[in-house]
Amino acid sequence: MSLFSHQHLFDFAQAIFIKMGSSETDARIASRTLLSADLRGVDSHGVARLSGYVRLWEKKRINPTPEIRIVHETPSTAVVDGDAGLGLVVAPFAMQVAIEKAEKVGTGWVSVKNSNHYGIAGYHSLKASEKDMVGISMTNASPLVSPTYSKERLLGTNPIAVAIPAGEEPPFVGDFATTPAANGKLEVLQRKGGEAPLGWIQDKDGQGTQNAHGVKEGGAWLPLGGTREHGSHKGYILGSVVDIFSAVLSGANYGPWAPPFVSYLEPASDPVGEGLGHFFGAMRVDAFRPADEFKSHMDNWIRRFRGSEPVNPEQPVVIPGDPERAMEAERMENGIPLLQPVVDDLTALGEKFGVKF
Amino acid sequence: MSLFSHQHLFDFAQAIFIKMGSSETDARIASRTLLSADLRGVDSHGVARLSGYVRLWEKKRINPTPEIRIVHETPSTAVVDGDAGLGLVVAPFAMQVAIEKAEKVGTGWVSVKNSNHYGIAGYHSLKASEKDMVGISMTNASPLVSPTYSKERLLGTNPIAVAIPAGEEPPFVGDFATTPAANGKLEVLQRKGGEAPLGWIQDKDGQGTQNAHGVKEGGAWLPLGGTREHGSHKGYILGSVVDIFSAVLSGANYGPWAPPFVSYLEPASDPVGEGLGHFFGAMRVDAFRPADEFKSHMDNWIRRFRGSEPVNPEQPVVIPGDPERAMEAERMENGIPLLQPVVDDLTALGEKFGVKF
Repeated sequence: MSLFSHQHLFDFAQAIFIKMGSSETDARIASRTLLSADLRGVDSHGVARLSGYVRLWEKKRINPTPEIRIVHETPSTAVVDGDAGLGLVVAPFAMQVAIEKAEKVGTGWVSVKNSNHYGIAGYHSLKASEKDMVGISMTNASPLVSPTYSKERLLGTNPIAVAIPAGEEPPFVGDFATTPAANGKLEVLQRKGGEAPLGWIQDKDGQGTQNAHGVKEGGAWLPLGGTREHGSHKGYILGSVVDIFSAVLSGANYGPWAPPFVSYLEPASDPVGEGLGHFFGAMRVDAFRPADEFKSHMDNWIRRFRGSEPVNPEQPVVIPGDPERAMEAERMENGIPLLQPVVDDLTALGEKFGVKF
Repeated sequence: MSLFSHQHLFDFAQAIFIKMGSSETDARIASRTLLSADLRGVDSHGVARLSGYVRLWEKKRINPTPEIRIVHETPSTAVVDGDAGLGLVVAPFAMQVAIEKAEKVGTGWVSVKNSNHYGIAGYHSLKASEKDMVGISMTNASPLVSPTYSKERLLGTNPIAVAIPAGEEPPFVGDFATTPAANGKLEVLQRKGGEAPLGWIQDKDGQGTQNAHGVKEGGAWLPLGGTREHGSHKGYILGSVVDIFSAVLSGANYGPWAPPFVSYLEPASDPVGEGLGHFFGAMRVDAFRPADEFKSHMDNWIRRFRGSEPVNPEQPVVIPGDPERAMEAERMENGIPLLQPVVDDLTALGEKFGVKF
């Protein structure tokens, strides 16, 4: 584990995106989106994925010079065509459209097609909360999750983020995959040789398993809830809503047709749409009540919840967004830790493009 | 268990609401909302609750002749003040406002204050899907749920419903409480003397318990996910978002201040808003892409998921909304079963008001 400054990793990512052919502006936007994952502690979605984007570009599945544009709109909605550009650039464009619509008519809702992996959901939702708006962000993803009662992988881990501004308190930022845990936690258990908790995954026959390699061996993630008795049908509903809002509303590939992020898996030969889909929302809080009133009640909400009596005095109640914000401050100050395989991968990537890591 | 026709129960409920002082129109709307729960199989939210509404009216906590009105709006948003009217009437009014805004600018979003129990979430969302719109409905509720790591009850079971229209297929209707199971299931276990699955509730010390009476004895429901390891922080986020959209955006009571439905518990003496809150959304599908295109892809989505390979051939994969729709058809045809205590309660209610049950 070595530590790297945010600036160092940002400059490196930007240089690589420029080598791929991105404009300087796009490379900057993409690097900012990508690095927000490292800063907020979602290590699986940050620079560790940079060479994954490069491999997709090598396969011509990412267009470095996209013409991202609105293809359908009303005063409060739009569909954005990402033109196969980096999701890291397409998503900020689309969220900006949602924000501009909200400025005019109170709310803005944008569904996106022809995109790919957009980084972490929470980053995009924060763009709205910075402007006194509720921000909503979701995306579909490669199929890894079986609906309740199914053996097949039909849904991605389809995350949802909701950012809500407060006054003196920092914003509420919920950001979660619609599975019991993040896929990265399973990868940790695979490396350690540990067992997965029952209720996370099923094997290829649809039976609950603790084998941490179960998904790789033909099984699937269970939806949030885990078993039917514990509400997996609710996680199945959530993952489905993300899929439909992101891809059926926009004209992207949905369900099992969602294209894989990894370059060694080919997209479906019978696509039902274009690329991957996202969905963004922005709601001006003063479209409902005066902003200062809303924010002082959010402060009250946050303080009441944060101050509630904990089960264990050493583990206080957490407001969604608190841990990621603390991590961001710490990593901005002390640097971002990268595992040796990631350092080796980025070093090789740099050598390939003539960029020093 | 006796069977009653939908018409009989509808007429009875309507007569009682009129006796409470509701206008004929309001009594009809309220009865339709209430009975939709019995038809769709959510027995805890239907006529079994009628005398609960009456008791709240007797305590002057329900206003039978409310002046329901918009108190703040933009082209795509509104806040509705329910004037302490029946939630069963306030909610259809507010959903209609959302639909009318969507007709004009693509989407409509309405937050409601000064209301009370609104029946089942799914009923309201279906009003939008009948008009080729995505319908969203949520409400906060009396506190029964502890956030992850907390001993205190700070959130209701805060349900979310999303209805999405299809073409030849019936709509997708997800409708779920943000807890591992519905409170009614716990009540069944209490009557039977059974044990609750671990991961549903905690005792008064915040420890997981299988005691089906655990919530009544000072414990709490856990958020969807159950334990932290299984993602309870995600259920906590969902319940919080419902609370904030329904009550902080509108100016209703939020979190532990949400007023109880039962008349023997007094509302908080230090309210932070007015009554209970709801939140509704309507999005025209043709605000994103041509409606026929959207609907044919929804048909394809539904067929692919419904036809996916089941774990157990005798339990096919279900599309959200399927079981409730089947139940509605069956109960419209054969009648609605009521338990003897409910029959006795309604008979006594009828005698009190001079309405034959």
